[in-house]
Amino acid sequence: LVAAQAAGRVRVPTNFVTTISDDRGDEPRFAGKPISDVMEKAGGIGDIVSLLWFKRTLPTWATKFLEMVLMLCADHGPCVSGAHNAIVAARAGKDLVSCVASGMLTIGPRFGGAVDGAARNFLRGKDENIPPFDFVEQAKKAGIRLPGIGHRIKSVDNPDKRVELLIDYARKNFPSTDYLNYALEVEKITTAKSGNLILNVDGTIAALFLDVMKASKMFSPAEVKQVTSIGYLNGLFLLSRTIGLVGHALDQYRLNQPLYRHQQTDVLFVNEEIGYVDEQ
Amino acid sequence: LVAAQAAGRVRVPTNFVTTISDDRGDEPRFAGKPISDVMEKAGGIGDIVSLLWFKRTLPTWATKFLEMVLMLCADHGPCVSGAHNAIVAARAGKDLVSCVASGMLTIGPRFGGAVDGAARNFLRGKDENIPPFDFVEQAKKAGIRLPGIGHRIKSVDNPDKRVELLIDYARKNFPSTDYLNYALEVEKITTAKSGNLILNVDGTIAALFLDVMKASKMFSPAEVKQVTSIGYLNGLFLLSRTIGLVGHALDQYRLNQPLYRHQQTDVLFVNEEIGYVDEQ
Amino acid sequence: LVAAQAAGRVRVPTNFVTTISDDRGDEPRFAGKPISDVMEKAGGIGDIVSLLWFKRTLPTWATKFLEMVLMLCADHGPCVSGAHNAIVAARAGKDLVSCVASGMLTIGPRFGGAVDGAARNFLRGKDENIPPFDFVEQAKKAGIRLPGIGHRIKSVDNPDKRVELLIDYARKNFPSTDYLNYALEVEKITTAKSGNLILNVDGTIAALFLDVMKASKMFSPAEVKQVTSIGYLNGLFLLSRTIGLVGHALDQYRLNQPLYRHQQTDVLFVNEEIGYVDEQ
Amino acid sequence: LVAAQAAGRVRVPTNFVTTISDDRGDEPRFAGKPISDVMEKAGGIGDIVSLLWFKRTLPTWATKFLEMVLMLCADHGPCVSGAHNAIVAARAGKDLVSCVASGMLTIGPRFGGAVDGAARNFLRGKDENIPPFDFVEQAKKAGIRLPGIGHRIKSVDNPDKRVELLIDYARKNFPSTDYLNYALEVEKITTAKSGNLILNVDGTIAALFLDVMKASKMFSPAEVKQVTSIGYLNGLFLLSRTIGLVGHALDQYRLNQPLYRHQQTDVLFVNEEIGYVDEQ
Ligand SMILES: CC(C)(COP(=O)(O)OP(=O)(O)OC[C@H]1O[C@@H](n2cnc3c(N)ncnc32)[C@H](O)[C@@H]1OP(=O)(O)O)[C@@H](O)C(=O)NCCC(=O)NCCS
Ligand SMILES: CC(C)(COP(=O)(O)OP(=O)(O)OC[C@H]1O[C@@H](n2cnc3c(N)ncnc32)[C@H](O)[C@@H]1OP(=O)(O)O)[C@@H](O)C(=O)NCCC(=O)NCCS
Ligand SMILES: CC(C)(COP(=O)(O)OP(=O)(O)OC[C@H]1O[C@@H](n2cnc3c(N)ncnc32)[C@H](O)[C@@H]1OP(=O)(O)O)[C@@H](O)C(=O)NCCC(=O)NCCS
Ligand SMILES: CC(C)(COP(=O)(O)OP(=O)(O)OC[C@H]1O[C@@H](n2cnc3c(N)ncnc32)[C@H](O)[C@@H]1OP(=O)(O)O)[C@@H](O)C(=O)NCCC(=O)NCCS
Repeated sequence: LVAAQAAGRVRVPTNFVTTISDDRGDEPRFAGKPISDVMEKAGGIGDIVSLLWFKRTLPTWATKFLEMVLMLCADHGPCVSGAHNAIVAARAGKDLVSCVASGMLTIGPRFGGAVDGAARNFLRGKDENIPPFDFVEQAKKAGIRLPGIGHRIKSVDNPDKRVELLIDYARKNFPSTDYLNYALEVEKITTAKSGNLILNVDGTIAALFLDVMKASKMFSPAEVKQVTSIGYLNGLFLLSRTIGLVGHALDQYRLNQPLYRHQQTDVLFVNEEIGYVDEQ
Repeated sequence: LVAAQAAGRVRVPTNFVTTISDDRGDEPRFAGKPISDVMEKAGGIGDIVSLLWFKRTLPTWATKFLEMVLMLCADHGPCVSGAHNAIVAARAGKDLVSCVASGMLTIGPRFGGAVDGAARNFLRGKDENIPPFDFVEQAKKAGIRLPGIGHRIKSVDNPDKRVELLIDYARKNFPSTDYLNYALEVEKITTAKSGNLILNVDGTIAALFLDVMKASKMFSPAEVKQVTSIGYLNGLFLLSRTIGLVGHALDQYRLNQPLYRHQQTDVLFVNEEIGYVDEQ
Repeated sequence: LVAAQAAGRVRVPTNFVTTISDDRGDEPRFAGKPISDVMEKAGGIGDIVSLLWFKRTLPTWATKFLEMVLMLCADHGPCVSGAHNAIVAARAGKDLVSCVASGMLTIGPRFGGAVDGAARNFLRGKDENIPPFDFVEQAKKAGIRLPGIGHRIKSVDNPDKRVELLIDYARKNFPSTDYLNYALEVEKITTAKSGNLILNVDGTIAALFLDVMKASKMFSPAEVKQVTSIGYLNGLFLLSRTIGLVGHALDQYRLNQPLYRHQQTDVLFVNEEIGYVDEQ
Repeated sequence: LVAAQAAGRVRVPTNFVTTISDDRGDEPRFAGKPISDVMEKAGGIGDIVSLLWFKRTLPTWATKFLEMVLMLCADHGPCVSGAHNAIVAARAGKDLVSCVASGMLTIGPRFGGAVDGAARNFLRGKDENIPPFDFVEQAKKAGIRLPGIGHRIKSVDNPDKRVELLIDYARKNFPSTDYLNYALEVEKITTAKSGNLILNVDGTIAALFLDVMKASKMFSPAEVKQVTSIGYLNGLFLLSRTIGLVGHALDQYRLNQPLYRHQQTDVLFVNEEIGYVDEQ
């Protein structure tokens, strides 16, 4: 771009710059490729994500991994914040887009946001060659929990099948799994402390996402850094969970559920100015 | 459900009912199936959509079709309302979820909303055995344009490759294509009037979606009616376009674009009370 | 505008037209008036709403009425859909704008949307000179409930103070209250049937809003029609309730509430394909 | 609350706690007061904001100030991000709530977010008794611009009328204006450097908001800190700007504007993988 500007090829300054798609011909182009060509070659959504988010054609073993993540995170029941708000909006009679947006707006630090943190953490640990033992100790000293480590129910003796599926897939299909290996070394240290401090689904996705970038040899170190800091994994979670949010809204429409009003008895009413505490 | 209630099996009245997923065990269930089982059998996102939206296991030829639609509608360049608003929000420094929600909220009657209308229309035409000629005449008399018919650039002599791809796929893989056939009969009538009144991408998706429900033999007529009236196709468009919206936001972050402010010279300022018309 | 175009005064076609504000000088103009001038003359928010929504300077008795409405509808406790979703988003750690948007997106037909319907209804009844008795009978025959009529607790013998306040204000300050009078005639018919079928707050706001337009003599019949069909009263509710939504989000931040997860025991899990009904 | 819990008065643990409003009786209560009582005493929106956001009855000189802020920030023309996105959504045929939400979601660090920063900054400077000269030097050394200082057009010789109005109001009505005085001392230093480095509207609002909390004697130091860190001023901007966003959406409906599509010639299309730079 800069080169092109220098060469005087970009004459009119435009208000927008875009690098992912182009709709000026009679059919849109994804990363420069006409969509009908894309369709003939692409095997699934993963290839489209590859073109539109990464502006490049990732190998099939990588795009299949992206699809696995999209499938795994699609829903987590009706009780989590996102599904709940989408359901409440649907029962208020709102259109599908409003319901999905209302639910989606709860995705953030406490709901769905752990994966990017885990990726940044494993990237730092592995690239700075921090020995796994020290890596765990550093976190302990800083008083923080390692993102991507720990599970309430699953443990060494009762492993998480989803994690096994992902690792199995990576072992068979990835050219290399350096970050996963690092994460599993970390897991050895933590599970020695307590059996449930296993590498969880979020941690596995984070480590393998780093391996996608490294093993494909299509990302510079600067790009890897940018991808993990900008929130690509958050984007994957968001896209994936949209499947569930749409599903929950359609579900409520179908079931013809009435307006939801939370039970007043489930609320504690307090007012400090007038020393008022409600007795249920 | 009603039967179960009658049998006294549902004892505690709950505030919520859900039919698509269940998160009470140690891993979520999609339509009653543990997600790790689902992952082993599922080929792609289409299978997850099938379970979470339709609560049933659609055959592979159908789920692959859903994936084709998700791929085809993923983006349409940076200039359409949805992408534009997501870009403007990204340039205002907002987080990914806010950008996607801001863009998504423009999806509706004028942007992305034609497919459901086309589906309802072809369903009525075919099921009520309206001869294609009369079907076209009825619309003309009512002064409405047939949704799913017409293209600005493409025509009989310059066909749309995306439509060809979809039809080709359906002919090879669908057990039957009655609604597509009906839509193509309609196209014969309209293209006889004008070469560009072809069955467009939206119309093709709509007709084939009806064929999915019919040819799979998994939907009662009442369900077909509900699916087209509730907005499932709108949901498909919304999910698909989320790929593009995330892509555009990430793109602007990566390019480090500054706050956007629309050019004042592109606005006509008028005030009627004080007889004020701005002269540019 | 058309006249100006005819006169050739509008030379460059612009992509946008705006009639309410202008930001091209060193301070913004509201309806053509510099904001510092506006501030000197305006008594409150009602005057700003008048300029920005109605593009005209409504008399003080009218802008004070708008403010009363904004104050009355500002909040309705933490249990209604809007407040609830804002609270859930706040507890998910989301920023203020996301929380307000998530809550706001539940406002619609079943939550906050009755006032516009009531206004359209009373406008039709009064302008078409439908006798109140017939007006009530028509609704009964059509099987619809009159919007703006009826209250769960309040009745003729236990009147709603808010309604009394509004009526009192209007009687003292409005030049005329023709629509209110009509609505009260309707109330006489309905309360004769049942004591709780009183003119409720929504109905009173709707009728008095029509009186504002009529008694100010600043709206043509076409404008009155447009204002009630476009959703101005919905806008008033939306603006007013934003006060409460912001309040609820700030409240949760202050109280440092954790991530909310709805109780699983309050959900009935059903799957029809596999004949699955959960027994709590 | 803790005391009440200790005393065993709070028996059933509830899932929600709320301190601002209560809807359990036959009319809602704001900060413990029945809304009809509130309406009789309150002079305007400022009093409602006081009750619902601050849970206390601020004096009239303070609530009038809040109203002035709400009026001043209500709109800034159709070209800024928020109004622009609301307009684009309105032209896509979306409902009022969706338009307002789409626009609102652009409010953040670069659009509307300067006031909270200015408040935190002046609070620190004044409370830590940093001499104004050092305060300015510190910022210079840190390489940051003082939020609330500077204007593109206005200067010492061409003062901003809005700032004059606010200061005038505060001088006449506030019991004390310590933070404003401090900010004006800072301004003396900066304007000595360059005539346009005046205390701007954002800075004036920020300083006077701090004065409201101090001069009312109703906030503990911990509360002042919390209020400025949680984003109350952002809430004021958000509420205020909602007036304009609703106005812009209604404006486009009224003008019957068609679907907006940004001009393709205003976009530079780039793809790095295929060395593609579009020449306009
Ligand atoms: C998943 C998680 C919430 C499970 O928590 P839990 O089973 O309730 O575990 P507890 O909170 O009882 O912690 C037990 C011990 O393990 C430690 N621990 C828990 N998670 C840890 C982690 N991620 N890293 C290091 N130590 C951890 C705790 O500090 C505690 O030690 P202590 O007894 O010396 O105080 C927790 O492991 C966690 O927060 N993980 C990181 C965030 C994450 O990846 N979340 C996504 C999960 S889907
Ligand atoms: C796609 C579309 C906008 C193309 O429009 P266009 O090429 O500009 O066509 P024009 O508006 O110039 O119309 C040319 C003639 O065809 C007719 N026509 C256009 N679309 C028609 C349709 N869908 N059904 C019936 N007649 C149609 C017009 O009425 C016009 O007839 P006239 O000359 O007798 O008045 C238009 O065909 C349409 O609105 N289609 C339906 C909506 C739809 O499917 N949209 C999704 C497309 S991505
Ligand atoms: C407010 C409302 C929900 C109160 O309902 P409620 O006290 O539960 O009243 P019920 O549903 O028990 O109805 C009692 C009878 O009054 C009738 N009725 C209730 N509201 C009526 C109305 N608005 N118009 C005409 N008849 C009405 C019912 O049809 C019923 O008649 P029936 O016994 O012959 O079947 C109801 O009056 C209503 O829907 N009003 C219109 C919508 C509205 O203005 N909502 C805003 C309120 S904040
Ligand atoms: C309002 C503002 C954008 C005006 O900028 P401007 O007129 O274009 O000023 P310039 O960017 O040309 O700066 C001129 C000089 O003043 C300095 N300056 C500008 N704003 C300054 C500030 N807020 N504090 C300290 N120095 C400042 C610049 O560093 C520059 O110094 P230099 O010439 O030594 O490099 C700018 O003052 C600013 O960013 N203010 C802080 C943010 C703020 O309050 N925004 C709300 C405004 S509505």
